[in-house]
Amino acid sequence: MMTFVLVHGAWHTGDLMVAVAEHIASRGHVVHTPTAAGNRLGDSADTSLEEAIQSIVEFIESEALTDFVLVGHSYGGMLITGVADRMPAGTIRRLVYWSAFVPNDGECLNDLVPPFFLDLFDKMAESGGSVMMPFPIWREALTNDMTDERSTAAYAKLVPQPYRTFTDKISLSLPPAAFAVPKSYINFTEDTGMPHSMPWHPRLSEKLGLFRLVQASGSHEVCFSNPAAAAGAILMAAQ
Amino acid sequence: MMTFVLVHGAWHTGDLMVAVAEHIASRGHVVHTPTAAGNRLGDSADTSLEEAIQSIVEFIESEALTDFVLVGHSYGGMLITGVADRMPAGTIRRLVYWSAFVPNDGECLNDLVPPFFLDLFDKMAESGGSVMMPFPIWREALTNDMTDERSTAAYAKLVPQPYRTFTDKISLSLPPAAFAVPKSYINFTEDTGMPHSMPWHPRLSEKLGLFRLVQASGSHEVCFSNPAAAAGAILMAAQ
Amino acid sequence: MMTFVLVHGAWHTGDLMVAVAEHIASRGHVVHTPTAAGNRLGDSADTSLEEAIQSIVEFIESEALTDFVLVGHSYGGMLITGVADRMPAGTIRRLVYWSAFVPNDGECLNDLVPPFFLDLFDKMAESGGSVMMPFPIWREALTNDMTDERSTAAYAKLVPQPYRTFTDKISLSLPPAAFAVPKSYINFTEDTGMPHSMPWHPRLSEKLGLFRLVQASGSHEVCFSNPAAAAGAILMAAQ
Repeated sequence: MMTFVLVHGAWHTGDLMVAVAEHIASRGHVVHTPTAAGNRLGDSADTSLEEAIQSIVEFIESEALTDFVLVGHSYGGMLITGVADRMPAGTIRRLVYWSAFVPNDGECLNDLVPPFFLDLFDKMAESGGSVMMPFPIWREALTNDMTDERSTAAYAKLVPQPYRTFTDKISLSLPPAAFAVPKSYINFTEDTGMPHSMPWHPRLSEKLGLFRLVQASGSHEVCFSNPAAAAGAILMAAQ
Repeated sequence: MMTFVLVHGAWHTGDLMVAVAEHIASRGHVVHTPTAAGNRLGDSADTSLEEAIQSIVEFIESEALTDFVLVGHSYGGMLITGVADRMPAGTIRRLVYWSAFVPNDGECLNDLVPPFFLDLFDKMAESGGSVMMPFPIWREALTNDMTDERSTAAYAKLVPQPYRTFTDKISLSLPPAAFAVPKSYINFTEDTGMPHSMPWHPRLSEKLGLFRLVQASGSHEVCFSNPAAAAGAILMAAQ
Repeated sequence: MMTFVLVHGAWHTGDLMVAVAEHIASRGHVVHTPTAAGNRLGDSADTSLEEAIQSIVEFIESEALTDFVLVGHSYGGMLITGVADRMPAGTIRRLVYWSAFVPNDGECLNDLVPPFFLDLFDKMAESGGSVMMPFPIWREALTNDMTDERSTAAYAKLVPQPYRTFTDKISLSLPPAAFAVPKSYINFTEDTGMPHSMPWHPRLSEKLGLFRLVQASGSHEVCFSNPAAAAGAILMAAQ
C-alpha cells in the first residue's frame, strides 16, 4: 500500500483528478487530490507561483503525509518541483512527472512553451490577471483522443488560471537532476499539448537527470479520456 | 453518418483503398475511393500535378458532395491540399492527412523527400515520364509489417507514377496552416516511408498549424497490412 | 523453419537469452544462444573486442550453421557487425539489431554513447580491466518496465564486462550500410538505455542504410521483463 498526492495542471482542479485517483485507490492505495491556490473558487486572479507551491506544502503538512508519491500533471510539474525543494529530505518517496513541466532554478512555465503560447496568453492577460485555454486548441491539440461531445463537456469544467503562475520564475536550491528523491516521467505518446517538434519528452524529462520513463497511448487529457490508463501509468511509474 | 473521400498515394489506385473504405462503410458511413488522373489505366505518363488535383475536384463536383471528410494518403496529401484550396469554403468538413505530404505554395513532393529519393527517381524518369517504387525499398521500408508473400502480392498491384506529379510545384492561395477547414494528421509509428530522421510527423504535420494528431502502430502500407487499423485511425481523426 | 543465433549484450550471457530463445523455438525454429568471449566464467578481464567477435565466428563454424538469422542485442550489435564482415557472403540470412549498437569501421562502442557513460566507466576501469553497470542506472533507465524485485533479481545474474570490448575500435571492410545481407532493427519504445535525445533509433539504425524497422513497447531489458515480446519482434524482423 502506497500513498499518492496528485497535483493537477493549469485550468484544472483536484476534482478533475478524482477519476484517476479512484482507479489507483481501487488497487488498495491512499490517494489525495488537493486543489492548488489560484485554482480554487474565490482565489485571487493574482495568485503567485510561490503561493500555489506553498498551498500544496501546507496540504501535505496538514495531512502529516510522509513516504508518499508526489505526482504532478502538466503545470503541476512546476508545483511538485517546488514542493520537493521545500520539504525535508526523505518526506517524498518518488516524484512522478506526468506530461509535466520540469523547471530549473529561475525558470518560469512560459520559458518552456512555444512562442505562440506566449503571444496568445500575454494578450489575454492584459484584460485581467488570469488566462483561459482557447477551445480550438483544447479541442484539437489537448483532447485529440476524445469525441466533440466529451471534449466540450470536459472544457466546461475548467477554471481560469492566474497568469503569474506561468510568469513567476521558480526559486530552487538545486536543479531537479540533483534532487536525491527518485523521479519518473510519464509521456503519453499522442500528447500534443506541446508540439512534437518541442516535446514533453525527452526535452523536459531529461532535465530530471536519471529518471524512469513510462509511456502509454493517449492525449494530454487522459484524466478525462482514459483515467484508467493514467492510473496504470502512475502505478508503473511508482513501483 | 459522415461522407468520406479517400485519395490514394503514389503508385496506388482507388481500388487499393477499398479494403479501408469497407471498414469505414461498415460503421454506417458513405465512402468514395476515386483514382486520380495519372494513376488510371491509359493515363498519360506526362500527367501533371494540377491535372491530378483537378481530377479529384471534378469527381467531388460530379458526385455533388458537401460536408465530407477528405482523406489523403502519402502523395494524396499533395492532392487534398490542392483540392481544399480550389473548392468553395465550407465544402469540406475536415482534411485528414494520412502519412501524407503537406506542401506550402510553390513546393513539390520532391522538395519534401530525402536526397536519395531524388537521385533514384531522377535517373529512373530519364527513360520515360513515369517512375516505379523499387521492390527492395518497398519490401524493407514500406511494408515492414508484412510477410514476404503479402509484400510481393501487394507490389504486383502497383501502377507507374507520372513523375511530373512529384516535380510540379503546387500553387496555393494560402498555406495549409491558414486554411479555415479543420485538419487531422495520422501517423503510423512504424512508417519508415520517410526516414525517421526526416519523419512524416512532426516535420510535415506541423505545417498544418493547429491540427489533431492520431497515431497507431503500422507501416506506410496499412491499406494492405491492416485496413481495419487504417479505418479506425481515420474515424478517430474525423470524429 | 529458420535458424537463429542470438548474441547477448554487455554484462549478459547466452543463458540470459534462453527465455527469448524458448519462445522462438516454440514456433518451430532452431535457436542458438552462445556466450561471447569475455562474458564466460573465467574469461580474462582484458578480453578484446576482436576476441569476442571471433568467438561468435568460431561458434557458427563449429556448428556449421548457414542461412541463419543473426541477432545482436545492445553491445551484441558490435559483435554481429564484425561477424557479418568476417563470414563468407551468403552465410547469414539476415542481421537483426535489437536495441543495438551499429558501428562503422574504426568506431568503438564508447564512440556511440553519451559522455556521462564514458566518465562513469573510464573511472571504474581504472581499478581493473572490467566494468559493471551501476544498479541505479540499471533500475531506472534499463529496467523501467519491471518491479523492484524483478529488477534486483535480474541484476544479480549480470557478469562483469571487459572494458576493451567498449574501447577497442572495430575493423570493418565495408560500412554496414553497404553489407549485401538484409538488415532489420528492433526498437523498444521505452528503451532509455540510450537517452532519447541521443536514441537507438533512428540515430544508430539509419547507419544500416536500407533496413526494416520493427517496434514494440518495452525497456532495454525485455529479455527479462517480456521475453515473449522480444521473440515476437525478432520473428517479425526476420520474416
